[in-house]
Amino acid sequence: MKAVIVIGDGMADRPVRELGGKTPLEVAKKPSLNWVAKTGVCGVIDLIAPGVPPGSDTAHLALLGYDVFKTYTGRGALEALGSGVDIQPGDVAFRCNFATVDDNFTVVDRRAGRIETQDASELARDLKKVRLKKIQVTFKNTVQHRGILLLSGPGLSARVSDSDPHKIGKRVSEVHPLDDTVEAKRTAKIVEELLQRFHEILKNHPVNAERKKKGLFSANIVLCRGAGALPDLTTLPRQYGIQAAAINAVPLVGGVCKAAGMSLINVRGATGSYDTDIEAKADATIQAVKSHDLVLVHVKASDIASHDGKVQQKVRMIEKIDDMVGRIVKNVDMGETFVAVTADHTTSLLTREHEGDPVPVAITGPCVRTDDIEEFSERACARGGLGRMRGIDLMPTLMNFLGKTEKFGA
Amino acid sequence: MKAVIVIGDGMADRPVRELGGKTPLEVAKKPSLNWVAKTGVCGVIDLIAPGVPPGSDTAHLALLGYDVFKTYTGRGALEALGSGVDIQPGDVAFRCNFATVDDNFTVVDRRAGRIETQDASELARDLKKVRLKKIQVTFKNTVQHRGILLLSGPGLSARVSDSDPHKIGKRVSEVHPLDDTVEAKRTAKIVEELLQRFHEILKNHPVNAERKKKGLFSANIVLCRGAGALPDLTTLPRQYGIQAAAINAVPLVGGVCKAAGMSLINVRGATGSYDTDIEAKADATIQAVKSHDLVLVHVKASDIASHDGKVQQKVRMIEKIDDMVGRIVKNVDMGETFVAVTADHTTSLLTREHEGDPVPVAITGPCVRTDDIEEFSERACARGGLGRMRGIDLMPTLMNFLGKTEKFGA
Repeated sequence: MKAVIVIGDGMADRPVRELGGKTPLEVAKKPSLNWVAKTGVCGVIDLIAPGVPPGSDTAHLALLGYDVFKTYTGRGALEALGSGVDIQPGDVAFRCNFATVDDNFTVVDRRAGRIETQDASELARDLKKVRLKKIQVTFKNTVQHRGILLLSGPGLSARVSDSDPHKIGKRVSEVHPLDDTVEAKRTAKIVEELLQRFHEILKNHPVNAERKKKGLFSANIVLCRGAGALPDLTTLPRQYGIQAAAINAVPLVGGVCKAAGMSLINVRGATGSYDTDIEAKADATIQAVKSHDLVLVHVKASDIASHDGKVQQKVRMIEKIDDMVGRIVKNVDMGETFVAVTADHTTSLLTREHEGDPVPVAITGPCVRTDDIEEFSERACARGGLGRMRGIDLMPTLMNFLGKTEKFGA
Repeated sequence: MKAVIVIGDGMADRPVRELGGKTPLEVAKKPSLNWVAKTGVCGVIDLIAPGVPPGSDTAHLALLGYDVFKTYTGRGALEALGSGVDIQPGDVAFRCNFATVDDNFTVVDRRAGRIETQDASELARDLKKVRLKKIQVTFKNTVQHRGILLLSGPGLSARVSDSDPHKIGKRVSEVHPLDDTVEAKRTAKIVEELLQRFHEILKNHPVNAERKKKGLFSANIVLCRGAGALPDLTTLPRQYGIQAAAINAVPLVGGVCKAAGMSLINVRGATGSYDTDIEAKADATIQAVKSHDLVLVHVKASDIASHDGKVQQKVRMIEKIDDMVGRIVKNVDMGETFVAVTADHTTSLLTREHEGDPVPVAITGPCVRTDDIEEFSERACARGGLGRMRGIDLMPTLMNFLGKTEKFGA
């Protein structure tokens, strides 16, 4: 028996006026998602707890079966892991953005106009030249404005605040220690110095001069957030004796999966954006199931559409996810494969934020206790046979179907 | 966005033979409660955990988002707070009843025939004269037979038992320490001495002589229960950055709300009894919503009807609550207000006690994920889109709608 988990990032939503009071999932044409619901058992999931808006990282930790209150150590380390940065115990990593500030260090754009990866790479090349005493600095840009800052060396702490003020129109925050330790104070100071030196390099950089000419946002600062150290997880192979793989284009999700002992499968054409090659992801999943017990496939852009408030774009992304699910279920042996579909959180098109509303889930496969739900959506699944679950319960539920959970007791 | 929570005390029930196997909620005419269900999302709530009968204090603590197993410190302190008694850390407070005992200290009536507040006040005046060495004694009668005893001074403990045997026909219990500490032993001894002295004053009191003449129960003893110290709560303003108010006529509930950082709004005509002025409570709620993010309005008498086994009275009280909800939803801006209706526990007309059965809940407001439930009742709501929740999850659920919960993760 095998299992595939399909995660539409931020796919769940609230009723939207523009859609006649329906959610994007409710209006999307989604024959394959509905097929999973109809042939399977449905429910809703509170990823962390009712009302608590999850991040993509904590949500995926929960969906992989981890207690986030005990294991979560910040975004930075997970994103570093997922970006192929070699993070070791004791290191501290940050998620970074290239951003745009004015002369007063007030943030004008938090993503430097979603700068193209090529421009960002050219800028990053010069940031990598910065050296500090005793501390090894690694800066890696990933996709578009996104990047990783890794500090390695003795006496570091992840208990430091963000320089990212998280809002346009606010000034860049000073990085301060979040506890009274020498390590936190020292780390905050190091980061402050480093970001200052980055700014010196960026503000007069030829790439930015060129961007200004073109009327584009200048990537004149690096904002950092989510300082984190490596989490201490019992991997899925160790926990359940399975081989597991993840297919996704987002470093943060990849990092969670890697920390859980899953192998990361890179798919050409998987972009983490609207143009992602959904067929390629489906085919990679179909291939991966042959050599793994569990395959997680994650699609990002449904979340991006919500953050951008793009209603029709979100509906279309859900329809793309539906296509992907259709291709998967037609091409894996459904006589021995369980397919679970869910989201990692609700992202509201209205508030453009992650919200704490539960997400729908449907699981099809051999001998699940089917219910009478025939539609994959927030409201339909709420009436399903799985009832209301927590995120942490999905993995044991699937592993139980696969015969991989151990009896507790005699 | 604002939120109103309407709590019908003990409003939930079990099917009643006298009502043709229906519950009081099921037979009551309740167009407004049904409107909340129909336009909203429904569910059932286990206040503490399935099968555990909650007190009004623990139920309200849970509904305000607190883990009762970690925060509950006994009824006395909460009731003292709600009665305007100035309780400080280290103090121990008891909920008290004026009651009637025979010559063998067997309880004849636990409420001295629900003695009028005026008679109780006259008796209390003389109890207030009692002095002890090193310990400051405060006795305050509140409504009818109800009162508060507060002990202030060094070396006290709330770990002492009740003198109230909780049943008619039983003898008054000796107050004993509930742990091995010197403080608990000392406190038990102090309370015993004090209650003895109260009895001496009461048994020959002119007020009681007069009551006997009229054929009324003599309030010849004070029964105490629920020894408690101040709970240590993170207030709602601190937790969510909101302003919150509570409208109710019951000191115990008021105390919980005050401990949670809510301001208490006194409403003329709110009696905590069948004759409570429901219009005045509705109007106070409508007014309070203007200056607060969250308003809790509590109606007591549905619970009293159950404790008294009065079936029709309970149905009528539910209809009064329905009137109140109708007046509220017609007069607040429902475009920016969430209204949640629930009960703090099931009180069975048959057993006349709090029971551990879940209570119905319905939440209406902008962009909730409506379900197909059209009736506010125990059985109808159990099929609703919220599923089965815990009491502690209601507040995060509402605060999520108000955009007041913080994202956990990135």
